Amino acid sequence: MKALVYKSTGKVMLEEKEKPGLIASTDAIVKVIKTTICGTDLHILKGDVKEVVHGTILGHEGIGIVEETGSNVSNFQKGDHVLISCITSCGKCEYCRKGMYSHCRNGGWILGHLIDGTQAEYVRIPYADTSLYHIPAGTNEESLVMLSDILPTGYECGVLNGQVQPGTTVAIVGAGPIGLAALTTAQFFSPAIIIMIDTDNNRLEVAKQMGATHAINSSQENAIKAIMALTEYEGVDTAMEAVGIPATFELCTQIIRPGGKIANIGVHGKSVSLALEDLWSKNITITTRLVDTYTTPMLLKTVTSNKLDPGVFITHRFKLSEIETAYNTFGNAAKEKALKVIISNEL
Amino acid sequence: MKALVYKSTGKVMLEEKEKPGLIASTDAIVKVIKTTICGTDLHILKGDVKEVVHGTILGHEGIGIVEETGSNVSNFQKGDHVLISCITSCGKCEYCRKGMYSHCRNGGWILGHLIDGTQAEYVRIPYADTSLYHIPAGTNEESLVMLSDILPTGYECGVLNGQVQPGTTVAIVGAGPIGLAALTTAQFFSPAIIIMIDTDNNRLEVAKQMGATHAINSSQENAIKAIMALTEYEGVDTAMEAVGIPATFELCTQIIRPGGKIANIGVHGKSVSLALEDLWSKNITITTRLVDTYTTPMLLKTVTSNKLDPGVFITHRFKLSEIETAYNTFGNAAKEKALKVIISNEL
Amino acid sequence: MKALVYKSTGKVMLEEKEKPGLIASTDAIVKVIKTTICGTDLHILKGDVKEVVHGTILGHEGIGIVEETGSNVSNFQKGDHVLISCITSCGKCEYCRKGMYSHCRNGGWILGHLIDGTQAEYVRIPYADTSLYHIPAGTNEESLVMLSDILPTGYECGVLNGQVQPGTTVAIVGAGPIGLAALTTAQFFSPAIIIMIDTDNNRLEVAKQMGATHAINSSQENAIKAIMALTEYEGVDTAMEAVGIPATFELCTQIIRPGGKIANIGVHGKSVSLALEDLWSKNITITTRLVDTYTTPMLLKTVTSNKLDPGVFITHRFKLSEIETAYNTFGNAAKEKALKVIISNEL
Amino acid sequence: MKALVYKSTGKVMLEEKEKPGLIASTDAIVKVIKTTICGTDLHILKGDVKEVVHGTILGHEGIGIVEETGSNVSNFQKGDHVLISCITSCGKCEYCRKGMYSHCRNGGWILGHLIDGTQAEYVRIPYADTSLYHIPAGTNEESLVMLSDILPTGYECGVLNGQVQPGTTVAIVGAGPIGLAALTTAQFFSPAIIIMIDTDNNRLEVAKQMGATHAINSSQENAIKAIMALTEYEGVDTAMEAVGIPATFELCTQIIRPGGKIANIGVHGKSVSLALEDLWSKNITITTRLVDTYTTPMLLKTVTSNKLDPGVFITHRFKLSEIETAYNTFGNAAKEKALKVIISNEL
Repeated sequence: MKALVYKSTGKVMLEEKEKPGLIASTDAIVKVIKTTICGTDLHILKGDVKEVVHGTILGHEGIGIVEETGSNVSNFQKGDHVLISCITSCGKCEYCRKGMYSHCRNGGWILGHLIDGTQAEYVRIPYADTSLYHIPAGTNEESLVMLSDILPTGYECGVLNGQVQPGTTVAIVGAGPIGLAALTTAQFFSPAIIIMIDTDNNRLEVAKQMGATHAINSSQENAIKAIMALTEYEGVDTAMEAVGIPATFELCTQIIRPGGKIANIGVHGKSVSLALEDLWSKNITITTRLVDTYTTPMLLKTVTSNKLDPGVFITHRFKLSEIETAYNTFGNAAKEKALKVIISNEL
Repeated sequence: MKALVYKSTGKVMLEEKEKPGLIASTDAIVKVIKTTICGTDLHILKGDVKEVVHGTILGHEGIGIVEETGSNVSNFQKGDHVLISCITSCGKCEYCRKGMYSHCRNGGWILGHLIDGTQAEYVRIPYADTSLYHIPAGTNEESLVMLSDILPTGYECGVLNGQVQPGTTVAIVGAGPIGLAALTTAQFFSPAIIIMIDTDNNRLEVAKQMGATHAINSSQENAIKAIMALTEYEGVDTAMEAVGIPATFELCTQIIRPGGKIANIGVHGKSVSLALEDLWSKNITITTRLVDTYTTPMLLKTVTSNKLDPGVFITHRFKLSEIETAYNTFGNAAKEKALKVIISNEL
Repeated sequence: MKALVYKSTGKVMLEEKEKPGLIASTDAIVKVIKTTICGTDLHILKGDVKEVVHGTILGHEGIGIVEETGSNVSNFQKGDHVLISCITSCGKCEYCRKGMYSHCRNGGWILGHLIDGTQAEYVRIPYADTSLYHIPAGTNEESLVMLSDILPTGYECGVLNGQVQPGTTVAIVGAGPIGLAALTTAQFFSPAIIIMIDTDNNRLEVAKQMGATHAINSSQENAIKAIMALTEYEGVDTAMEAVGIPATFELCTQIIRPGGKIANIGVHGKSVSLALEDLWSKNITITTRLVDTYTTPMLLKTVTSNKLDPGVFITHRFKLSEIETAYNTFGNAAKEKALKVIISNEL
Repeated sequence: MKALVYKSTGKVMLEEKEKPGLIASTDAIVKVIKTTICGTDLHILKGDVKEVVHGTILGHEGIGIVEETGSNVSNFQKGDHVLISCITSCGKCEYCRKGMYSHCRNGGWILGHLIDGTQAEYVRIPYADTSLYHIPAGTNEESLVMLSDILPTGYECGVLNGQVQPGTTVAIVGAGPIGLAALTTAQFFSPAIIIMIDTDNNRLEVAKQMGATHAINSSQENAIKAIMALTEYEGVDTAMEAVGIPATFELCTQIIRPGGKIANIGVHGKSVSLALEDLWSKNITITTRLVDTYTTPMLLKTVTSNKLDPGVFITHRFKLSEIETAYNTFGNAAKEKALKVIISNEL
């Protein structure tokens, strides 16, 4: 089969690989119909994610059709249309029993990371019963690729951890796909104000179309002053970090009001400075989280009931045979005005 | 009247001051019967708390007898025995209505800070109806001085924010009065393990007597290794910081398990480093808080029902006339084996 | 001044009464600009609310302008435009400190009940600082009359107690003003399905315009069967009772799924049967509540940010001189297609 | 093997049955070392639990040693000492993923109910990985039989649903094994007052030894008056029903304070009357629950850390060959002063 393989730092290649087979009785083999590329894949490509070995098939998102199931898979059978979660959950360990699937002792984020992933014609899904989701009949399947990772990530790490509530004020630092996913799902809770902060005017424009009440280009104006002016000089109830660098995290700590919540979503590569001399008495909460995807069933219901249209994140479409071009487009997201690219399994 | 006055950096003096009178109709004048000295008073003495002006009477803890009440005080009358809260709450502002009294727009921590405090024969208490508490008949009044600040601080900032629950593992970094107050009130929730970390063997011994299941002298052994060994190499569910320096906060971030809670209690003077490159995916929560004292009524119930004996914190007793000596004793707490000192209003 | 007085069972009359004056230093006198009639006023009229004495001025809702304030009122001054809460809160008692204003030891629901109310030219508001709310400039003031009672009631007793969450299924039994207020505010949380049940087709039509996804006329079809068919035979996550009779409460207990929440909003006059033989193992929660109005500041923010338009509840308008007619109209709500009637203070 | 079989209404008999074998790959066969009899078993015996067919082996509690495991059991192997949960959880269905194991679509309470149970030499445990728990080395194994059902039931249905907190007041109606289990685990949260209500003076005496602060014999005094006198005429914060008849549930609704929680634990056979005419405005919460046993891992930690001694519930011991006598003893619990009886698998 065709698969996108991480060859060496800076290099991926579409090449012929053996079709995966069942290993454990809890596995399923899924024919991938649509997949996408994540910012994390770009990090892997740069060599930032040390544990990914050369030769690994990348990708941890997608939808497909079940091709084969192990003897102990009971929730799925050949022919089922399924959503693949970026997080693999065994369902049995202490973390899975607490809903913390990202820390599953037998799974977690392994697809396209520790085992072969979804940017291929077929993928092996361990613990299929608790790592796949049935696609409801009549759904726009392509759009559900956004439920593999970005929408649960924005929702769980940003919106739920940030405790967005009706009438509150929210700031989201970073208007990339994850920040926009947080923006979209924050609106489930009807906050009064959602301020989007980024340095790219195009993305800020998209954010306003997706429901931001205010947009601040932090390269053009002082974000702290602007946010304070919008919040009666109190700061925001919830600040979400969706970039992953010290400056954006530290900005969140400077715009938070007493009692506020700072929800980190970004993947960080270095330490940040936390001004406890100012914050110790401010009664704030800071959270970190790798997505658990435990809200995926709930998010599916919001899609089928038309509260959420995941299709708005898709800006470009490619065939699997064009996936190297897709990487280039997604890697130049600002210039290409790309949010999420869809890769279809049509060679 | 006699009062302990902050004269200049490094200098306090017991001197004669005018007895306070009512200013607002919501004030009460309280004859102070017992007070104490807080670590924060030592910080003020050193000049660390810039907003305290020379001439201020220090002290924000104590019990006493109501001497006089303003026309709009309805919950208290002359002769009532009262506990003085370190936090003044107007009861009317948006923060008070949310239970965040420490951020009261008209009060907060003002006693012995922005207005004259309790280390005197008399003190004026603004918003008396919502800043004083009736002492139940038959209670050991002296011991209730511990409910003015340290017990609600340990409980709210450490135990409640740290979400201590039955069967969990807890580490408390710092075995001073605040750390020990957290230790004592953590036991309301029956955690399985409470590990106390300090560099003073005497305080660690006290901690074991007060219920710590394990004590680690971090100057004598590697605290991280020791804690990991005690927690099956998972780390603790709750880590409380009760010192106020970067090293102790950073220790908390190194011993926390996935899903854990880091509750900062300490007063910090500088920034700390937060290793988000390790923590971003660890699903942890960090909280900060200045005590709100909203749990004072509850804590009073635990005292009257014998679930809590606040008297265990008292190691030394002085008369008000000896308060300068008391400052010396408390200022050399390790050498003097001092926890909390009681100052009695008998000249 | 003119005021609507409860004369005897079945009889109210607009008559001349003395303008109220300040009694306590915490009082304010408010010139009433707009008020309305509540279903509870009809109950009083029928003699169902025994503690209301003849001669009482009715009404517990309204907006107005502050005319005079007691010496201890600090949040308001003459000329301020204010929203009057149906619940009076002293701000000092143990229940107020917990946010349970409806159980305030000095207030609670007293307006138009135990003291004279708002269906008059002027009204005395006790504990004004904690019982009135500033009207933000530029707001449609008339529509805010809906925030005195029905919107916080639907929101607190129905939506918050019922724990409506994104993607969940909700049933609301009763499409009167309170049920519709619950329907409107339930949408703050983006449930997947909201089923409205009533016996009046006009009200069901209004409910659909206000956001109900399904409407069931329980006099024309079997409501239980219809709801089960809409919920994959599981029942609903949240069922709200907004009528106040045994049949509607019992319906809620028959359509609830395992783990579901039954939120009672209705005022009940007799006992209901609770089928514990079916429910004991169903892991459900039943709540009751008199509105506390602690969410009024939050609801004001949803109005100013255009998440909520309270004006949709207003179907009829009268002058104060016509208030007896207004009672007739509201008393024949089904026939008159009346939801809420506005009474303007123009004689 | 020997097994206790439900023969017909009123009749159980120890007889020879075929040793169970594996059916599904997720099954384990456990050699039962200790089991016990539950009040529910007596209900089955009386014919009250219609779905139990004649010929079923009773029992849903016990500890044992794994004898054989299916190919898909990964957490356990032959020779492991295990605690058997009364609730079977598949770990895969939507209810299991939410922690509501009692509503597991493939399990729930099935042992000794819909399939053969533990009052036998061997038992087949479906979904062994998520329905058995490892017994920590060094634990008093016999006492852990109390963790199969009564302790998680008292804790989850009573203490957690009842939201027992430090300093609160608690009433528990019914001092049988379940009520005493609630009493014991309520103390994890350090309430100020725990009032036990029963009609058996012996059980009330046991309750006081187990930590009740007050005991009321409701056949000898007016329980409502006595409880009101103990709670400053406010009522209790938490009332737990641990009997299962209308009178005891209705008592709970009469002693609850505003804002209080009524946690039903009892198994009910008929409807109760709920006085909504009094309760609608009282801001109370009523919960029902079949135990989920999701707290079993936590309870095990409280045992190993000596916060909980489950052995106190054991009053009588029998061999499996004497189990019919054990039923007689447990069936005459009041006369025999029996709480829980242990049945050892020694013929």
